[in-house]
Parts: sequence; structure tokens; C-alpha cells
Amino acid sequence: MTVQSSCRDDFPALRRKIDGQTISYLDNGATTLKPRSVIDAVTEYYETNGANIHRGKHRLSEEASDAYEASRTVLARHIGAAANEVVLLRNTSEAINLVAGGLELPPDAYIVGCMDAHHSQILPWRRAGRLDLTKVDGYGRLDRDHFRELLRGRPQVVALTHCSNVTGVVHPVEELIEEVRAACDAVIVLDAAQSLPHERVNVHKLDVDFMAFSMHKMLGPTGVGCLFGRSELLAKLRPQNVGGGMVDWVDLDGSVDRRTPFKFESGTPAIASVIGCAAAIRYLEGLDADGQRQHGHDLCAALVGGAIDRPGVSLIGPPDVKARIPLATLRLADGVPAGEVARLLSDSHGYMVRSGHMCAQPLVTELAGGEVLRVSAYVYNDVAEIEGFYGALDELLSWMAPAARTGAGRT
Amino acid sequence: MTVQSSCRDDFPALRRKIDGQTISYLDNGATTLKPRSVIDAVTEYYETNGANIHRGKHRLSEEASDAYEASRTVLARHIGAAANEVVLLRNTSEAINLVAGGLELPPDAYIVGCMDAHHSQILPWRRAGRLDLTKVDGYGRLDRDHFRELLRGRPQVVALTHCSNVTGVVHPVEELIEEVRAACDAVIVLDAAQSLPHERVNVHKLDVDFMAFSMHKMLGPTGVGCLFGRSELLAKLRPQNVGGGMVDWVDLDGSVDRRTPFKFESGTPAIASVIGCAAAIRYLEGLDADGQRQHGHDLCAALVGGAIDRPGVSLIGPPDVKARIPLATLRLADGVPAGEVARLLSDSHGYMVRSGHMCAQPLVTELAGGEVLRVSAYVYNDVAEIEGFYGALDELLSWMAPAARTGAGRT
Repeated sequence: MTVQSSCRDDFPALRRKIDGQTISYLDNGATTLKPRSVIDAVTEYYETNGANIHRGKHRLSEEASDAYEASRTVLARHIGAAANEVVLLRNTSEAINLVAGGLELPPDAYIVGCMDAHHSQILPWRRAGRLDLTKVDGYGRLDRDHFRELLRGRPQVVALTHCSNVTGVVHPVEELIEEVRAACDAVIVLDAAQSLPHERVNVHKLDVDFMAFSMHKMLGPTGVGCLFGRSELLAKLRPQNVGGGMVDWVDLDGSVDRRTPFKFESGTPAIASVIGCAAAIRYLEGLDADGQRQHGHDLCAALVGGAIDRPGVSLIGPPDVKARIPLATLRLADGVPAGEVARLLSDSHGYMVRSGHMCAQPLVTELAGGEVLRVSAYVYNDVAEIEGFYGALDELLSWMAPAARTGAGRT
Repeated sequence: MTVQSSCRDDFPALRRKIDGQTISYLDNGATTLKPRSVIDAVTEYYETNGANIHRGKHRLSEEASDAYEASRTVLARHIGAAANEVVLLRNTSEAINLVAGGLELPPDAYIVGCMDAHHSQILPWRRAGRLDLTKVDGYGRLDRDHFRELLRGRPQVVALTHCSNVTGVVHPVEELIEEVRAACDAVIVLDAAQSLPHERVNVHKLDVDFMAFSMHKMLGPTGVGCLFGRSELLAKLRPQNVGGGMVDWVDLDGSVDRRTPFKFESGTPAIASVIGCAAAIRYLEGLDADGQRQHGHDLCAALVGGAIDRPGVSLIGPPDVKARIPLATLRLADGVPAGEVARLLSDSHGYMVRSGHMCAQPLVTELAGGEVLRVSAYVYNDVAEIEGFYGALDELLSWMAPAARTGAGRT
């Protein structure tokens, strides 16, 4: 508790009150709040510099370029990559689209994905070729036999989701990647948006070809998504945007692209936000790793334990705390509108949780049949908040769905 | 002078000193500094909110969504557009690429551009079809006869540059657009990145189909580029990125796109930066328009007047102050390295100016033959700074290029 309490003080937004009530931010799967050090890094750039990068020789421009590239290096090191293997984009969605379009697959390309993928790891691939989604069981665990069966179709791309933003299940990607490597020559593209905020990944040990993630989901500023790519694959990847800053030479006949990662970063980037990312990584790396692991486990136990056998709700996802992030998605009893519950939890009780289809409609439709409520915790949350959330939910459901409270929601 | 001096105080970065020396920021063509109100808007979002937009029903998410959409409305109104005609992207480059790729032109499409375009208004079109560039005269003014001749080729797209980032020439786009409309059915795409910071544009009066600009060049945060598009054209435009947030429905067979502009904004955007844009627009709109016009004229006169008949430099661009922004690009005498001059101007004299090819290599190669030095002013600069810059340049050239000072640079 002490660790988390002191950590909570680092996040100015948690001082916010709604109608005099302290807030509890439990929508971390959507985005996380920012610690003081990240906000200060952004502000400092604007207050003491503000210049553009890469193209100037004056002091402010060189300082800005240095800070920008230093941030790339910090990000790269965090995932075990070299700086020139990390492309700085807007979000995970853009990173995956860059790969899906940039591989220039033939129109009949065969791609294997996962049923529990976020829309951003489904739609770009559906546009790029013929996509089959690996089935999941009733708890959202991947059907490994089905995965192997799909691999026999010799896909050109395997689009993996490290961790579902709905079930919180962390898939055994090491094993899945081994199976892909043994079965075919597919390019492996990993969506790590939900996993990386909770566990370190070394891209080279993992043997992944591309990995996408978003810094705003791990304490960083909004507007920065990252794409790791093996350098030989990045070298062949077609840039999505061409223009200023990504070419070495342009004349009337043609142009010469700059080397990676610059050839993918046309135009002025989100300089301030990228600079803020280094502070986010430093903050995360500065936390006690063992303490955080235990903390994450405690949060998981509270989230999962609170949902099990609770009248009026059923958990979408496995009923245990193994291989998952601290996130619980709840199906409410039929006829109880999740959006309205989320609004009341926020306005009357101070709990910020998400409602809807979680941008993962194929899975949510299959497992829940409609809108769900998602509670997702992070470093600044504690077990008491989770308990408080369930207490508030009980109170709301007691009058919103009195019938369901006798057990109808648990089917 | 009073207006500018008080304005200068609004920009914290201008309090910065280098080696005890006050700085003079004259690299506004690359990006502008940010006023206190813009920095505060960004910080306030992070300190009091931090939530994601559009997908949540809780209070913080609704507040963030409201602030984000309010900013879009402010931006749209500034250019005479409706909010749903403005797509929020990263930069001008991305905006133009979205149009160039999204129009899905046939491979043999014919496109007319301008010789003085930024690379971001050249390379996307060269990739999209067969691009011809309208010639310019020795001062960078468009060859109107050549433009008309190219229009006779019945281009599918005419890619116009409102104002060159090299010569500072503001082209008569109203007339050019009339000529295009009379000659063919081309889609007209305007790069307003350099013009909009200096003069208001009404997109509907201008009768333009698409217009791209970057907020960071007009006091806004880094990482926000805007695309205006007529709604009927945006409706047909193919999104560059597909994924979360841009679809109404996804199932195993397909998906239904959200309406514009959301279908172009997949994934979590640069929320904080977009929110900061409203403050930038409000700041600009709050300045006295007549005073600013006079101020811009005075800066132009100082920039152009300072270059004319000055030993060791020659002006790239017209020698008058009509229809131009306060920007002067200088060719230095042969053998005087522009980058080194920029560095010394910064480190020894406190003047931040740009050097290089200005991401407009076809033009710079033709008019200057090599790297140039660019001095560009904005609302917080004053005439004394321009005079000081030229004084410092004289001092440097007196020992870096003593021969040129006798006139060799003036050819």
C-alpha cells in the first residue's frame, strides 16, 4: 500500500475531485494518467525550446533534435531494440497500418490473426489480404489447435495480440512465435499495446518481426505510437507518408529516401510528446520491479475475485489470475445498460471505468453478446479502490437491476 | 513596437538565454514558439484529466472528448469550415498523403504541381501519378502561362502551394483556382502551411477542395496537422489508417465506417496537443488584425530591405514586399557554408535561423544552386531583431568570406 500511495501522489490528475469526491481512475486499458515528470518534460520543451528537429543547425534545433533522438533511444532500449529499429508514429493503429500497407502483399495474401484482437489488429489485415481469425474458448484463451491448423495454410503474415484488451489474457506469444517459425515463413506482427505497460518485452529474444505499442497507455503523452521492426524488414517496408524530412535528395526526376527510421517519419512529428516519452519510460523503469509484480498480482486478484460469484455480473475472461493483466471486463444482466452504469459510477461514485465494445467487437459479440463494462488498473491504483468499485457497482445494480442481483446475470 | 514587446512576454521560450545572451528566434517557417496559454492548455489537460476520448461514458472521458471536439470546431471556424470537414492528423505532410493516396487515382493520373512546392506537396503526388511542376521565374513567381499550358493536359489533381517556404511568395491562389475550375475538373489541393499562420483563409470562399496546414507553425503544439476537405469529397476518400475509433461496427464479415471526419482518425489521437490548438487559434484571433498586418509588413520590409544590396548575400525571392510573408531566404557567396553560418549566428549571436535546402530541393537547386540561409519572423519578432540579425551576419561574413563582401555574393 505504501508504494502505491506514494506513487499516486506523482499523478496530478488524481487530485481531481468530482462533486467533492476523490476520483478513482480505472480506465487504464484506454489510456493512463501522466506522472508529474512526464508533464514537466513536455512543458519544459515548450517553455525553454520549442524549435523543430533534424533540419536546423541552430542551438535550439540541435537541442530539440538531441532530446527527440535521446527519447527514441530510451524507448528502444526499453524493448531491447536499437534506436534505428524504432519508428515514432501516432498510435498502435498507425503502426500496424504502416506494416499492413507497407509490406505490399499480393491481393490474395493469407493472414492469420486472433479472434480477441483489437480492431486495429483486424481491419488493416482484412484490407491487406484474406484474414482468418484464430478462435478462442469461452474464457478468451486461444484455441491452439485451431491456430496450428490455420498455420498449415502457410500465411504470409501472422498478426498476434500479446494481451487482449477485453479478457486481459496474456497469450503465450513465445510459444506461438516458435510454432509460426516452425510452420512457415510468415512475418510476425505483435500488438503489444496492452501487455507492454505491464511487462517488459525483449523484441529480439521474443523473435518478433514487428511490434506495435502506444506510449499513452504506459504513462507517456498522447500522440505517440511506436513500431519496432527488424532493420532488414524496415529497410524493405514502403513508407506510408512521403514528404519533408524523410528524403536525402529530391530533384526533378526522383528522390532518395533517408535511412530507417527516418524514411517513415515525414513532416514535423509530435516533438514535445516524444520528448515526454523518455520521462515515462524512466518513471516505469524506476519503479521496484518485484514490488510492481506483486502489486499487479494483488490488483488482478481483487479484480477477478470481485467479479466471481457476484450477483448481477459475469466475468468475460478466465476466472484465475495466471497470465493476465489487472483488467476485468464484466457482462451485466440483460437490459442493464453498461454505458449508463459507467456514467453513474463516475458521476455518483467517482469511479472511471469503460463501457462499450472495447474496439474488439468480434470477441465482445461472441463472449458477451453486447456492451460490457471494463475495469482496468495500473501502478497508481490499489486494492481498496477495486473493492470500492465493486461496492459502488453493487449499490447501483441493487436498484438498476434488482432481479439480476438474485443471480440472473451470472449465466 | 509596444504591441510586439508585450506579445514577446507571452512566449516563455523567449526568456531563454544562450551564454547569457537573449535569443532571437527567427526560424518560424520551420515551427513557431508557443504562448503561455497554449502551454497551459496542454498542461491543464494532463494535470486535471488525462483520459481518452470518444469511447468512454465516464466524466473524464466526456470532458476530454468535449475539449477535443471543441478544439476541432475552433479550428474549423478559423478557416470558415464546418467541424466535420476538418480531419485532425499529425502534420501537413500526412494530410497531403491522405489525399494523394485516398483519392485512389488511376496509375496514369495526371497531376499539376508547383516548382516551389515543399517536398510534402511533391513526393505524394509523384507517387500517385504523373506529376508536372509549374515553372517559376528567377524570383520564384509562378509562370502563369506555363500553368495554363499544363492545365490544358486536363489534370485530375492540381496541387497548389499557397506560399513558398523558400521565397515567401504568396501566390494568387484565388485566380489560380478560378483558372483550374474553368479549365478542367481537377481536385484542388492547397498546401497552406506557410500562408495560414500569416493570413486568414476562408476555404469555401476560396473554392478549394482540400487544404492542409500544421498547427505547430501557428503557435499550436507539435503533432497536429489539419486537413480540410469538402464533405462530399471526404466521404469518398479512402482512410489511410483503419482500426479502433473509426468504425461503427465490426463483425466477422466486414465493418461499417464511422462518418467523416472520424473515419480518418483511427486510434488514440494527440489529445493534449489538439486541445492546445484551440488556445493557439484564440491567441491569434485575439491579436489586433490591423496591427498585425502592419507589423508583418514592417518585418517584410526589414527582411527584404536588409538583403538588398548587402555584400556577401543575395535574396532568393522577389525584391519587393508585395504578397509575401515575413521570410527572407539568402544565398551566401560560393564556399561559405550556410550550416556553419547558422550555427555561429546561434551560438555567438543568439539568432536562430535555418540553413539547408528547406525541404524544397527542386526550387532551391534551381534558384540558389545549393544550401541557403532562411530568416523567418512571426508575431513576437520586431524590426530591431531583423536589423540585429543582419549586423551579426555582416560580422560573421567579414571573416568567413572577406572576398565575397566586396560583391561576389551578389551575382
